[in-house]
Amino acid sequence: MTENAIGIFDSGLGGLTAVKELVKLLPNENVIYFGDTARVPYGNRSKRTIIRYAEQDADFLLSRGVKMIIAACGTVSSVAVNLKDELPVPFTGVVAPTAYAAAHATKSGRIGVIGTSATVNSGSYKNELLRLDSSFSVFQQDCPLFVSLVENSFISADDDIVKMVVERYLKGLKEQNIDTLILGCTHFPIIAQAISNYLEGRVTLIDSGKETALYAVKLLEKHKLFNRSEQPGSCRYYVSDTVEDFRRTAEIFLGKNVGNEVSHINLEHAFVH
Amino acid sequence: MTENAIGIFDSGLGGLTAVKELVKLLPNENVIYFGDTARVPYGNRSKRTIIRYAEQDADFLLSRGVKMIIAACGTVSSVAVNLKDELPVPFTGVVAPTAYAAAHATKSGRIGVIGTSATVNSGSYKNELLRLDSSFSVFQQDCPLFVSLVENSFISADDDIVKMVVERYLKGLKEQNIDTLILGCTHFPIIAQAISNYLEGRVTLIDSGKETALYAVKLLEKHKLFNRSEQPGSCRYYVSDTVEDFRRTAEIFLGKNVGNEVSHINLEHAFVH
Repeated sequence: MTENAIGIFDSGLGGLTAVKELVKLLPNENVIYFGDTARVPYGNRSKRTIIRYAEQDADFLLSRGVKMIIAACGTVSSVAVNLKDELPVPFTGVVAPTAYAAAHATKSGRIGVIGTSATVNSGSYKNELLRLDSSFSVFQQDCPLFVSLVENSFISADDDIVKMVVERYLKGLKEQNIDTLILGCTHFPIIAQAISNYLEGRVTLIDSGKETALYAVKLLEKHKLFNRSEQPGSCRYYVSDTVEDFRRTAEIFLGKNVGNEVSHINLEHAFVH
Repeated sequence: MTENAIGIFDSGLGGLTAVKELVKLLPNENVIYFGDTARVPYGNRSKRTIIRYAEQDADFLLSRGVKMIIAACGTVSSVAVNLKDELPVPFTGVVAPTAYAAAHATKSGRIGVIGTSATVNSGSYKNELLRLDSSFSVFQQDCPLFVSLVENSFISADDDIVKMVVERYLKGLKEQNIDTLILGCTHFPIIAQAISNYLEGRVTLIDSGKETALYAVKLLEKHKLFNRSEQPGSCRYYVSDTVEDFRRTAEIFLGKNVGNEVSHINLEHAFVH
């Protein structure tokens, strides 16, 4: 069982920011990633649709025998809150670990949260932060265009379009004098530099992919699921759209080529509920 | 048979620009619209995925007994080119009618085409234009961020973000001195004013939704399928995501409220191939 892979899924490519961190922390673990690239983005979809997609994604990973599942997707973690109870293996989303990290980073207690519309409307990060410390002041802003910007390579901190969209969405949060900002969508670290520049480097950015990878290490320890092998682990990627498109853009997120470790899987055939 | 509805589908909401024109031209026809809002956008997906989705969309409309099908989606019309041969009812996409209109509008023979990445990569409009007149000079540009702009309400011609994205994508076409521009995606008419302003009103914009509605009238005539009823026709809308979200945004496209004429349909349950 301990040699089985850790399963990670996301609506598309954003979850790769968590894969990158996890592989750094646990180089001997095997990882299976599923990106639902044929149905990305989830963030503007309804609650019912997001829950249905998340269940299909998790079922696919279970069919591959994973020992743990990470929903490396702010939208799924915020909306499909009962998924954890339905699974036969340890599970984490990104909300609890990320909120925990933000609660420890803030000094003023003024915390901003940005995410997709579904994430922000769910209030997931805000509720978790207030559960940790009810004296926090939490300010939310949905940034629905950020995912499209990132997936269409509008990512440079010097790009005027990126700068203007960042300003449009974050102006209100800046005026609230936050000292900590949760990047509540795993796509957002890709434009972290533009966000940080706009906030003049005065705000601590909390990367949900990174914090979730850190938490996954604790979860493996708790369940005694560490892979004791001394061999380097393997990473295997599955996507619902074609592998060629994934190969091209995955490099933006992983900082390296995924090579031939990518396969196509049609969820609609295999795992219709 | 003539009282059966005309079926129109699109990846999401853009096809409503065609519905609006069709209802203006043929107020006595019944119309059934399907918007695949749970899987929108199609334009960045692979050819194989787009074809699979288009077949499911058409099958759904057939199950509702439509007498004709319109793919009011630049991406589907460009990529799923064999769909016509698979259907038992008359069919049109947007490419042929729109190219025909552009060919008649141009004076200089210098024509621009904008669409999603899938549409532009297919070369569909360009090939159709050159088939009509091989002396045309055709310049293509994919504008993958336009769909997200429109669906997230970045639509005002005065919005600096809209203006900058329009300039980024259309600068090359403007330099080519085109006199006619095909809006090869049914979302794009929503930002036609911003596009026209950037081109300083010197370029004729061809709206694929409108031209396709005009062609559909001819197609009905040819197949003797006009509804002779003197009652006003009905419009019925089906979407794959929730009806609430559709109701909110459909007004941007239709210019009126869709009221209670919207139902949810789950294509994955009903029409898996």
